[in-house]
Amino acid sequence: MKKIIKNGTIVTATDTYQADVLIEDEKVKAIGQDLSDVYAEVIDATGLYVFPGGIDPHTHMEMPFGGTVTKDDFESGTIAAAYGGTTTVIDFCLTEKGKPLKSALEKWHAKSEGRAVIDYGFHLQIVEANENVLQEIPSIIEEGVTSFKVFMAYKNVLQADDETLFQTLITAKDHGGLVMVHAENGDVIEHLTQEALKAGKTDPIYHALTRPPELEGEATGRAAKLTALANSQLYVVHVTCKEAVEQIAEARSKGFSVYGETCPQYLVLDQTYLEKANFEGAKYVWSPPLRDKSNQEVLWNALKSGELQTIGSDHCSFDFDGQKDLGKGDFTKIPNGGPFVEDRFSVLFSEGVKKGRISINQFVDMVSTQAAKLFGLFPQKGTIAPGTDADIVLFDPNVERTFSVDTHHSAVDYSALEGMRVIGQPVTVLSRGEYVIKDKELIAKPGTGKFLKRAKFNSVQMNEEEKVKSI
Amino acid sequence: MKKIIKNGTIVTATDTYQADVLIEDEKVKAIGQDLSDVYAEVIDATGLYVFPGGIDPHTHMEMPFGGTVTKDDFESGTIAAAYGGTTTVIDFCLTEKGKPLKSALEKWHAKSEGRAVIDYGFHLQIVEANENVLQEIPSIIEEGVTSFKVFMAYKNVLQADDETLFQTLITAKDHGGLVMVHAENGDVIEHLTQEALKAGKTDPIYHALTRPPELEGEATGRAAKLTALANSQLYVVHVTCKEAVEQIAEARSKGFSVYGETCPQYLVLDQTYLEKANFEGAKYVWSPPLRDKSNQEVLWNALKSGELQTIGSDHCSFDFDGQKDLGKGDFTKIPNGGPFVEDRFSVLFSEGVKKGRISINQFVDMVSTQAAKLFGLFPQKGTIAPGTDADIVLFDPNVERTFSVDTHHSAVDYSALEGMRVIGQPVTVLSRGEYVIKDKELIAKPGTGKFLKRAKFNSVQMNEEEKVKSI
Amino acid sequence: MKKIIKNGTIVTATDTYQADVLIEDEKVKAIGQDLSDVYAEVIDATGLYVFPGGIDPHTHMEMPFGGTVTKDDFESGTIAAAYGGTTTVIDFCLTEKGKPLKSALEKWHAKSEGRAVIDYGFHLQIVEANENVLQEIPSIIEEGVTSFKVFMAYKNVLQADDETLFQTLITAKDHGGLVMVHAENGDVIEHLTQEALKAGKTDPIYHALTRPPELEGEATGRAAKLTALANSQLYVVHVTCKEAVEQIAEARSKGFSVYGETCPQYLVLDQTYLEKANFEGAKYVWSPPLRDKSNQEVLWNALKSGELQTIGSDHCSFDFDGQKDLGKGDFTKIPNGGPFVEDRFSVLFSEGVKKGRISINQFVDMVSTQAAKLFGLFPQKGTIAPGTDADIVLFDPNVERTFSVDTHHSAVDYSALEGMRVIGQPVTVLSRGEYVIKDKELIAKPGTGKFLKRAKFNSVQMNEEEKVKSI
Amino acid sequence: MKKIIKNGTIVTATDTYQADVLIEDEKVKAIGQDLSDVYAEVIDATGLYVFPGGIDPHTHMEMPFGGTVTKDDFESGTIAAAYGGTTTVIDFCLTEKGKPLKSALEKWHAKSEGRAVIDYGFHLQIVEANENVLQEIPSIIEEGVTSFKVFMAYKNVLQADDETLFQTLITAKDHGGLVMVHAENGDVIEHLTQEALKAGKTDPIYHALTRPPELEGEATGRAAKLTALANSQLYVVHVTCKEAVEQIAEARSKGFSVYGETCPQYLVLDQTYLEKANFEGAKYVWSPPLRDKSNQEVLWNALKSGELQTIGSDHCSFDFDGQKDLGKGDFTKIPNGGPFVEDRFSVLFSEGVKKGRISINQFVDMVSTQAAKLFGLFPQKGTIAPGTDADIVLFDPNVERTFSVDTHHSAVDYSALEGMRVIGQPVTVLSRGEYVIKDKELIAKPGTGKFLKRAKFNSVQMNEEEKVKSI
Repeated sequence: MKKIIKNGTIVTATDTYQADVLIEDEKVKAIGQDLSDVYAEVIDATGLYVFPGGIDPHTHMEMPFGGTVTKDDFESGTIAAAYGGTTTVIDFCLTEKGKPLKSALEKWHAKSEGRAVIDYGFHLQIVEANENVLQEIPSIIEEGVTSFKVFMAYKNVLQADDETLFQTLITAKDHGGLVMVHAENGDVIEHLTQEALKAGKTDPIYHALTRPPELEGEATGRAAKLTALANSQLYVVHVTCKEAVEQIAEARSKGFSVYGETCPQYLVLDQTYLEKANFEGAKYVWSPPLRDKSNQEVLWNALKSGELQTIGSDHCSFDFDGQKDLGKGDFTKIPNGGPFVEDRFSVLFSEGVKKGRISINQFVDMVSTQAAKLFGLFPQKGTIAPGTDADIVLFDPNVERTFSVDTHHSAVDYSALEGMRVIGQPVTVLSRGEYVIKDKELIAKPGTGKFLKRAKFNSVQMNEEEKVKSI
Repeated sequence: MKKIIKNGTIVTATDTYQADVLIEDEKVKAIGQDLSDVYAEVIDATGLYVFPGGIDPHTHMEMPFGGTVTKDDFESGTIAAAYGGTTTVIDFCLTEKGKPLKSALEKWHAKSEGRAVIDYGFHLQIVEANENVLQEIPSIIEEGVTSFKVFMAYKNVLQADDETLFQTLITAKDHGGLVMVHAENGDVIEHLTQEALKAGKTDPIYHALTRPPELEGEATGRAAKLTALANSQLYVVHVTCKEAVEQIAEARSKGFSVYGETCPQYLVLDQTYLEKANFEGAKYVWSPPLRDKSNQEVLWNALKSGELQTIGSDHCSFDFDGQKDLGKGDFTKIPNGGPFVEDRFSVLFSEGVKKGRISINQFVDMVSTQAAKLFGLFPQKGTIAPGTDADIVLFDPNVERTFSVDTHHSAVDYSALEGMRVIGQPVTVLSRGEYVIKDKELIAKPGTGKFLKRAKFNSVQMNEEEKVKSI
Repeated sequence: MKKIIKNGTIVTATDTYQADVLIEDEKVKAIGQDLSDVYAEVIDATGLYVFPGGIDPHTHMEMPFGGTVTKDDFESGTIAAAYGGTTTVIDFCLTEKGKPLKSALEKWHAKSEGRAVIDYGFHLQIVEANENVLQEIPSIIEEGVTSFKVFMAYKNVLQADDETLFQTLITAKDHGGLVMVHAENGDVIEHLTQEALKAGKTDPIYHALTRPPELEGEATGRAAKLTALANSQLYVVHVTCKEAVEQIAEARSKGFSVYGETCPQYLVLDQTYLEKANFEGAKYVWSPPLRDKSNQEVLWNALKSGELQTIGSDHCSFDFDGQKDLGKGDFTKIPNGGPFVEDRFSVLFSEGVKKGRISINQFVDMVSTQAAKLFGLFPQKGTIAPGTDADIVLFDPNVERTFSVDTHHSAVDYSALEGMRVIGQPVTVLSRGEYVIKDKELIAKPGTGKFLKRAKFNSVQMNEEEKVKSI
Repeated sequence: MKKIIKNGTIVTATDTYQADVLIEDEKVKAIGQDLSDVYAEVIDATGLYVFPGGIDPHTHMEMPFGGTVTKDDFESGTIAAAYGGTTTVIDFCLTEKGKPLKSALEKWHAKSEGRAVIDYGFHLQIVEANENVLQEIPSIIEEGVTSFKVFMAYKNVLQADDETLFQTLITAKDHGGLVMVHAENGDVIEHLTQEALKAGKTDPIYHALTRPPELEGEATGRAAKLTALANSQLYVVHVTCKEAVEQIAEARSKGFSVYGETCPQYLVLDQTYLEKANFEGAKYVWSPPLRDKSNQEVLWNALKSGELQTIGSDHCSFDFDGQKDLGKGDFTKIPNGGPFVEDRFSVLFSEGVKKGRISINQFVDMVSTQAAKLFGLFPQKGTIAPGTDADIVLFDPNVERTFSVDTHHSAVDYSALEGMRVIGQPVTVLSRGEYVIKDKELIAKPGTGKFLKRAKFNSVQMNEEEKVKSI
């Protein structure tokens, strides 16, 4: 059924204006003043922003980790995302050494099919780069999985060596893929971790102290330099600190296609949270760890000046009771991760826009548009314009509220932002023109969200010819 | 009369999509698929881009310089601009020491009123910062002149000292102005120039050799650091070289509101042009001078990575015969400047987008949107969205052509880009919904362009509340 | 009379070893184990270091400033220096606009002749660079005054403009001079100062707050860049902060002959001293001002890594009672400066060597050798080797003592380091083989110190041919 | 027998002066004017420099590599060294995985004992850092082997991972060792090499093209950052390029104990040499490879400004006939290395001092003193002062000569500097007071050179107490 969103203020990565939006057949049909259509349902957006749906390029749903599995699956996870204003997630598909890449994707399709309430895509992990793997990559790209994650940390588990990283960069460049890295020096972390355990330092805070920012800076610079040498393209996930930002900025200054993502947690929390009593620090254990508070300003400045481009949630939720507590007496056993898919969008609006750190258009760019462009979803997703998917969030910019486990929609038993006051809330969320959330109530059924075949990476972010064609 | 632009591809700083545009009462009314209105004139844009009109933030029309006056006035200059796809210019109004700022503006209004075929605004020069001047600035801002230019070069003529610059930065911050600088160290240039003349070095090339890039880098860094200290906002005009780009990038990394403009000439020409025989080098004399070719890649990378934001033409045209030749035998007497207002838009499209250096959305951002946002014209100008002025360029992206004095529309007797092949050409240009150029023919009459009262500067480039209000 | 220093540990900028030193006819004659000479007086240096006498390249004796005159003249000032282990000072000779440089030197000769107990030289200020001044410089250099100071601060008083600085750099390069700068942006300081006074902010702390480190960094970078362009040589006096160190390091990395001096006060005191109650903050008012404590580590690192080369005292002493208090109610009237000529050497030994921040050879390099090399006194001064002037300090490295006005030898009525504990003390000091201080008692009479004609600057710090010749 | 060197000009890292040197019992006894001793042999050094003997901290004598062994053993190699003015070499002892470190040292002692004509020490390679290795290190240090080399390149052969490097850094810090790295990213080189071979690119030039400077810069930065994190000490061998110099300089600016060595070949040769016809390019194959010529100036500037400290030869000689030609048709089979132990000293004098790039004292510092200080040989070696070993070179600074295989003393069949004109030549060389070379004739017998037990590393390069004690 057709819909018209009336009286709202439409905001894109460039524009802010008042107009009505006509939706038909899953897509935006027209935008204008005083639109009318007798067959259309009218949605009144008076006093609301009309945003393109958020795109979260970094989630881990139903992911195995250290003998347990993240709490949120594609159902609860995408419901939480939708409540938060996000209409697309791109989830990380883990691979196993010695097995075809395709088998990993099949596993991820099995987990997600019929479960999600919003659209989703996959990134694929590359842990080794032998002949088989490299030959399989082009066909993976053809299937719409066009980004590949290499871990420089988690030695003996997920970590790949530099040869693997470099081969992935070369192959990605040749076939239109984008390489993503978790940039921390896993070798040194391994040493520091073993030393800490030997010394009886087992509390959560040692998770942070054994992964200092210097090691993130080092690995980020290494990945950026290898990318430059390969003349390929790189996306650094979850950037947390000055040391890493500087490396990304330097590569970009020289014209290389290096991009960076940060996460809401690094913008508002800091390392002292890991010192909370009663093992509560474990709630804040993820990798890279929370940093010294001074890095928050660095990250905001990097977002403002364009050195970083996107905000991912790195949603990777584990219960405090029964999961996080596996690490009592040994911080290395604490499952890494936290729940942010729901709060990502609102944290950035409240802390970024409302506090004057970024413009509202930059906000849209960071939470939606840039991810769409980098990951081959644009212009289908990431903006509001005739012809695009009607993934739209009606957002009340004035309501004040408090993040809490009591009100969030993730399946996990705590909120890492418990008690935080924010301004602004998604009210109604559409995915391809249909309600997912209507007046803060869940409407969509599991399975309405579809898998997204993403386009190849283009280093100038869609040049003219290709872009027009792809509509 | 209403108009509908049909079948074109609309491009903004974010989006690229096919849709129709309905124009009514000077403004964009609606954008959508298959729009129709029986009362509207239909403009067929099949195969054309539909761009927001270019905004040229840097022109000098009918400007006195060294005893002569620039060839283009507000009539010929804005006609040339319009032919090139530009629908707004912001011109520099020069002041005199000891006289009220207002008297300078009156002079500029007198020159422009009834002459322009497109809309225009003014920047105002600040050459001294005494009590009178500082007290007058707020009222100037209220009149819609919200940006102020300080010259760090042209010793004993236009140059202001650092105290003046700093006071201007403080005053601008307090009242919502944006400070612009011509950043070259005029003191050292004065010395080098006198030494060159003493040594009998009088050819045009010595204009470049007495203004080396180190002096632009130095002055740019100085201005950026004073801006940071003042916590004010700065726009560096005509950035030409690595030394200057680095200083801007460093300030931006730290979160300061420092912006940079480059010009088409620095992207495609280089210092060797000043060595042309028969005094032809004089055609390429402007300040800062053309640089070593290696800087071209630096500037493109700075545009791509966001370290520079805008493209100005620095249009400042003098005839070769009768004006440039005043400097025969003494390069210091060559009037500084060249004609670029018409070619700016197309150079960037052809060399930038067509050669894959920037995306087509970045192109729009640089030639139009960013200038609108920085100089208080957004969203009235700088984009295509319901409610905005219908300043629109229909652009053929495939036609090949050659720049030449024979075909350009400036009043000046040479083209600095004579013989350069480019791809793409504006076909039809609308200003507030009316034809300026229709199928490459001039339609508008002098005086149809209006003076623009510009809004105050906002360091986050329009925060949400203000922006919505301003529509 | 001949002397033999026996049983001491000789330390130079390179070496540390035990040997005896034979002195004859003002000079070191031989160094060796078990030297003996029946005609020589034996000085027992058991347990003592035998250092080359300190060279303080930065003093202001009997200098007029703001209507008053520094308390120490060439007699009391050089006595204090000698007690502190310094056997050479280079004092700043101030010039007046419109008068020949020579007249200023005559004035300084008049002040110093017959007064000093140690040898001394002069730097000469350049405040304007007209034809007369530039033509006089070569003859000044021939008279042994080979370094020239340009002030970038003290607007309307001492400040020179960039054209003057650049002309001085060019002239110095051509004739073998070294240019020194006081690097602070005087224009902006003038503005900040006037604003502070208008706002009733008159306490000593506002001296620091109106001269922020950004302005020192800016001016330092400007001077360094002009030096690079001129391919000349530069010595930045009293470097206090990270912003300035970075600029010097960058120029040096590129191979330019840029050198930096810091002072003991910046290594051990910080900005909070200016907030002392009862106007005591005025004791710590000098320019550039004391900085945030974090800069201390930056300066130590710069010394350790070789980014800075020398330690000057910037001795410029004014009584608290009767001089500093001229500025009660108006910080701009506080005479700028403090007494450090006596403590310079021991502060660096105690805080640098004893705390492991620098090696003992680096210590000698910084307090003596580098200054000798940079200012044309080497190898006559600055080391201990056969043929050099026997300017020698016997230093007890183990005694603990406290700096105090009660024990210092300056004529001034306070110590800026009152109560500071240090380890190490000069015991006996020789100038050209004669006692100045013997067992902590003053022996020398005023006038035993001689004016030093210094050699021209050499950018590779004396190349082989010249150096050998000059012995 | 006693000796007196008369009429020469003594040069140390600080001083240049004319005096006589009295030698007795292997050591310098006294230095002075007009020394006399009836029992001493007089050596006339009129017109000659009297330098401390060179210290070459980087040689590979009788080293196995790729199935062959370097041509020079400890006899021919040290003879060549002595002819070139070097009186101490520190050679790299290679270890094998799974074997005690001690067994490697025994092998190296067996190769060197009774063979060398000058004194020598060993560095020890660390290829793995298991419990056994880490526990053995302290005893190795006690035996006077105090520096440890980790290879970041040569994947699957010599390369260690970052965990090994980091553990070595920690252990070295705790026990007074200095860690050395060969800094190139071996992983990426492995990939590039395999790709080149697959593509049939087998000529010597591909050795350089598969090891681009970016990979040296990356690895250097990585090692420097790990050193900073470990608060340990690092010496980067054979630095060749801007990318690496910048990383070292940055670490040093922050106060970290990071040092760099370059080699004569990188100062005077460049990458084009690998393109020589008839497989002659193979003569110039070593790792890191020769670079683009622009790096030469970067390296000279780094030496001049103190960013790099030492000059090693990386002497590693293979015959062109019979060894280098193993790599015909496959550049990876070319033994890496070249003969420089003899020319190192003279190249630096002629290209550095004679061309005005560095002072003669800096020359001594780089070819001798700094290595002595960094590697625990000071003040026994590295300077000329009473009490030090009489390792002395009499050097004629005016003779012109040509490097050639016809005149050099290495056993190898080519000179990499064939035909190069230099000014200056060692005439007579003493080791501990005895002639090794007398008037250009070899005097010493194999075995007169002794193994040197070196002292522990001290981050401030010997603080006062320790240094005096050690004499």
